[in-house]
Amino acid sequence: MGRIKRIERVAALTKELVDNPLKLYSFTDFCKRFDVAKSTLSEDVQAIKNGLVAYDLGTIETMAGAAGGVRFIPYHSRIADTEFLQDLAVRMAEPERILPGGMIYMNDLVLTPRILMRLGEILMNHGQNEAPDYIMTVETKGIPLALFVARAYNVPLVMARRESRITEGSAVSINYVSGSTKRIQTMSLPKRALPKGAKVLIVDDFMKAGGTAKGLMDLVGEVGAEVVGVSVLVATKEPIKKMVAEYFSLFVLNDIDDVTKSIDIQSNF
Amino acid sequence: MGRIKRIERVAALTKELVDNPLKLYSFTDFCKRFDVAKSTLSEDVQAIKNGLVAYDLGTIETMAGAAGGVRFIPYHSRIADTEFLQDLAVRMAEPERILPGGMIYMNDLVLTPRILMRLGEILMNHGQNEAPDYIMTVETKGIPLALFVARAYNVPLVMARRESRITEGSAVSINYVSGSTKRIQTMSLPKRALPKGAKVLIVDDFMKAGGTAKGLMDLVGEVGAEVVGVSVLVATKEPIKKMVAEYFSLFVLNDIDDVTKSIDIQSNF
Repeated sequence: MGRIKRIERVAALTKELVDNPLKLYSFTDFCKRFDVAKSTLSEDVQAIKNGLVAYDLGTIETMAGAAGGVRFIPYHSRIADTEFLQDLAVRMAEPERILPGGMIYMNDLVLTPRILMRLGEILMNHGQNEAPDYIMTVETKGIPLALFVARAYNVPLVMARRESRITEGSAVSINYVSGSTKRIQTMSLPKRALPKGAKVLIVDDFMKAGGTAKGLMDLVGEVGAEVVGVSVLVATKEPIKKMVAEYFSLFVLNDIDDVTKSIDIQSNF
Repeated sequence: MGRIKRIERVAALTKELVDNPLKLYSFTDFCKRFDVAKSTLSEDVQAIKNGLVAYDLGTIETMAGAAGGVRFIPYHSRIADTEFLQDLAVRMAEPERILPGGMIYMNDLVLTPRILMRLGEILMNHGQNEAPDYIMTVETKGIPLALFVARAYNVPLVMARRESRITEGSAVSINYVSGSTKRIQTMSLPKRALPKGAKVLIVDDFMKAGGTAKGLMDLVGEVGAEVVGVSVLVATKEPIKKMVAEYFSLFVLNDIDDVTKSIDIQSNF
């Protein structure tokens, strides 16, 4: 490798850091890998931080000491996040999204990587103190959002299934009552998916009465792990009392009127 | 905003570019946003390219002319990709992954964002000429990989379902024969998910006889869209003749021996 200019090294350092949110890199490793002195690296990291903060693209955290290091935290200002979510609420309220049964078609929005990435980062920032070891969801529609929350936290995803599958080995199953239909359903998780004591953040796309979230919480308890939070994209206003005591939703769906073709949905930011 | 140093601007520019793979940014827009002359921007972009290439972190493509601009292409050297895939093959072959029915437990690997991101980028680079408008998969286990392929191409994901759901509106359904079990199954896609003429890359986690991939291809044809490729993570060696004429797999599963507890899987790189 020829002589690398400082500005070129900073580009490479930026890419490495932003690709691995929350991952703590030791200064020593970075010094070796980029072949620079610690003082030079510190200056580079400070420049990266300044640049990211100036353009509202996140920040860099530096920890001093022997166990010290540097990590990237995805971040946008509250104003930018609010604007992003309010724009999304406007798009979600487009009348042609109304489906029979009081549902909204959102696949074109919630399956777009750019949107998912931002939503994942917003949910991560909202609950940053939670420090989950795993993100958990249940098939199918919650998977994309949950996966990008997992990306923002840089931790693995765990997927519960509606029934137990041979391809996942021995499983733990629970029965739960769907809050809205009152039907008894089954949910299962491979036994090896979650270690005992693991901290789990539950993520789903939609919450009505909260039966599914409650089922996921029970499943986490069943394997001896711990729920540190429940985050959903959209929660309906009614019923006000959900089956889970605490949760966070980015949007509240107040009402869908199939006659006037109007959707009343608002951002919580 | 105070005076931004060149090195700080380069950090911000790098973040913006690498977060949006394959997205073409116009020079004019970037000049406005970062408040620099075109000549300065060109130098910045060249420095970013040099830095990324030097550390094998991807590259920057510059297109001249009125419609010109700049974009980031995720990329690692063939040597680095080969090493990554061979390491993964070693992990996939761990005997404790063997499940009844000749399956391998892989959730801990294929639900980890860092691994998924790399796999998505490798699959994108393999088929870069395909330029799909959409990535398509079928629930459930193919979703995470497909989503990160979608991220690498910066295009939306489309999910077929095993049955049609009220939450996705009117749907197109097809019946297909599962290649390995010979059972007739149903797959459906919301009518509005894919526009006519759209170019679709099919992605799944596993291919045995190829019945599911064939079903997805039929579904794409049914809505008047076009399949530009089929990519899977793992394909079994047997049957050698699959139900789809052309596909690409990152790994070949030669054999699982439940008695000797050995898995014979190899990377195609």
